[in-house]
Amino acid sequence: MANEKMNGVARLIEVTAVEDRRVDDFRDLSTADRRPDRPGGRGLVIAEGVVVVRRMLASPYPVRALLGVRRRIEELADEIVDLDVPAYIVDAEVMAGIVGFHLNRGVLAIADRAPEVEPAQLTATARRLAVLEGIGDHENLGSLFRNAAALGIDGLLLGSGCSDPLYRRSVRVSMGHVLRVPFARMHSWPADLKLLSDGGFRIAALSPQPSAVPLHAAELHQGPVALLLGSEGPGLTEQAFAAADVTVRIPMADGVDSLNVATSAAIAFHAIGEGAVGGGR
Amino acid sequence: MANEKMNGVARLIEVTAVEDRRVDDFRDLSTADRRPDRPGGRGLVIAEGVVVVRRMLASPYPVRALLGVRRRIEELADEIVDLDVPAYIVDAEVMAGIVGFHLNRGVLAIADRAPEVEPAQLTATARRLAVLEGIGDHENLGSLFRNAAALGIDGLLLGSGCSDPLYRRSVRVSMGHVLRVPFARMHSWPADLKLLSDGGFRIAALSPQPSAVPLHAAELHQGPVALLLGSEGPGLTEQAFAAADVTVRIPMADGVDSLNVATSAAIAFHAIGEGAVGGGR
Repeated sequence: MANEKMNGVARLIEVTAVEDRRVDDFRDLSTADRRPDRPGGRGLVIAEGVVVVRRMLASPYPVRALLGVRRRIEELADEIVDLDVPAYIVDAEVMAGIVGFHLNRGVLAIADRAPEVEPAQLTATARRLAVLEGIGDHENLGSLFRNAAALGIDGLLLGSGCSDPLYRRSVRVSMGHVLRVPFARMHSWPADLKLLSDGGFRIAALSPQPSAVPLHAAELHQGPVALLLGSEGPGLTEQAFAAADVTVRIPMADGVDSLNVATSAAIAFHAIGEGAVGGGR
Repeated sequence: MANEKMNGVARLIEVTAVEDRRVDDFRDLSTADRRPDRPGGRGLVIAEGVVVVRRMLASPYPVRALLGVRRRIEELADEIVDLDVPAYIVDAEVMAGIVGFHLNRGVLAIADRAPEVEPAQLTATARRLAVLEGIGDHENLGSLFRNAAALGIDGLLLGSGCSDPLYRRSVRVSMGHVLRVPFARMHSWPADLKLLSDGGFRIAALSPQPSAVPLHAAELHQGPVALLLGSEGPGLTEQAFAAADVTVRIPMADGVDSLNVATSAAIAFHAIGEGAVGGGR
């Protein structure tokens, strides 16, 4: 069945030599794409594994090519059947030689960037937003997107000090949801936060500070809300707090460091999202 | 000041040779301690970094020795001042040679295991428990302990298929909270779940299945509750579901995979913990 399906699929090309120039987009990923956002970086977006590749294929990101072992490409047959891009089929050793390390997920897709969304486009349509400040860790950023997708957040706004969510590790940790949940960079920080108050959003800053309102008492599930999230160490800046309508905290046991930022965010996303509005209170 | 403090501290011993036999407990950590729970494994518990070492020093685990660069040992001066154990002072290169890799946290402590707690001891005193089934991933296990500590869970019960929480990576990811939050292994699974029902606990299984009760509607913050958590892929077994009084779910957006198990747990811990009983509803 798999072979039958494969007949009309994409442009299947067997590649047997590591040095084949046609797969240069996939070459030495750990070095070439370390900082795709920087000048000289190629700016390509990489999806790893069947689940994430599938999500890339369903996203607005224009896929340039796939590279994978036959079994994994076959798993994607339904999704690539009408796609006019090359799907390079390799064995695991050649793949490791091209990519620069052994990739046990067995398939990659590579895409150009989609046009950037402007913050005003998000604030015009969303009801629940997360606004990030100083989230530089790629894994935390990826986890934030995964949690936002699962818990009904409509989009993310990236304030100052945030990494590129399209970096390979973020894409992977997000399970591909960085390609699916809209995000926009705020170019003027914190001035752009005014877009939120102008848009009728209640801005809630999340912080462990004892004077903050307990999350469950803040009734954030009513009306448009934007949740301000800072990094675990330094937390939000004074400027960010100043822009907030309320500061909320997750009640925590004494003597415990703060939770991981993506975990805190998940708790807050649940409180402001469908979990809260879906009934039961 | 640091030097002054250091005068009465532990037994400070400078070690300058990688092959010094006195530091054998710390040797080749990544191989020697890969499976400390297995026969042949040394069964020692390792804490990495000032924060986690501090937590080990305050735990019931009997510390055997410390190893670290002078600056990090000095940071711990207050905690080790009355401690009759060797604190080996090394430079970063010697430390890397002993441990087998470069450890940028700069200090380690090593302890024997504390006596195991029996499940019945936990069910006799706790009001909020997490019960884990099939949590084999050391990072997830560590994160579960960190989240449990932060969110007021009194203890964890380990059912079948769980890894050793005292494995080095779990200790680190937990931020040392595996040394602080009581846990007990259930030797007879799922029969030991009877301890919970006998103890008056409401057993709530967490699952993404659509027929489950939304978490916020389950009113789990009233009375003793035990939250049953399975791994992300296979989830809980039929046996575990059969023992539950209620199955609860975190409402999630369509087309999104389940959340990470430690993240789901954090949302549920918040719902059943102080966050819920502390007022505001």
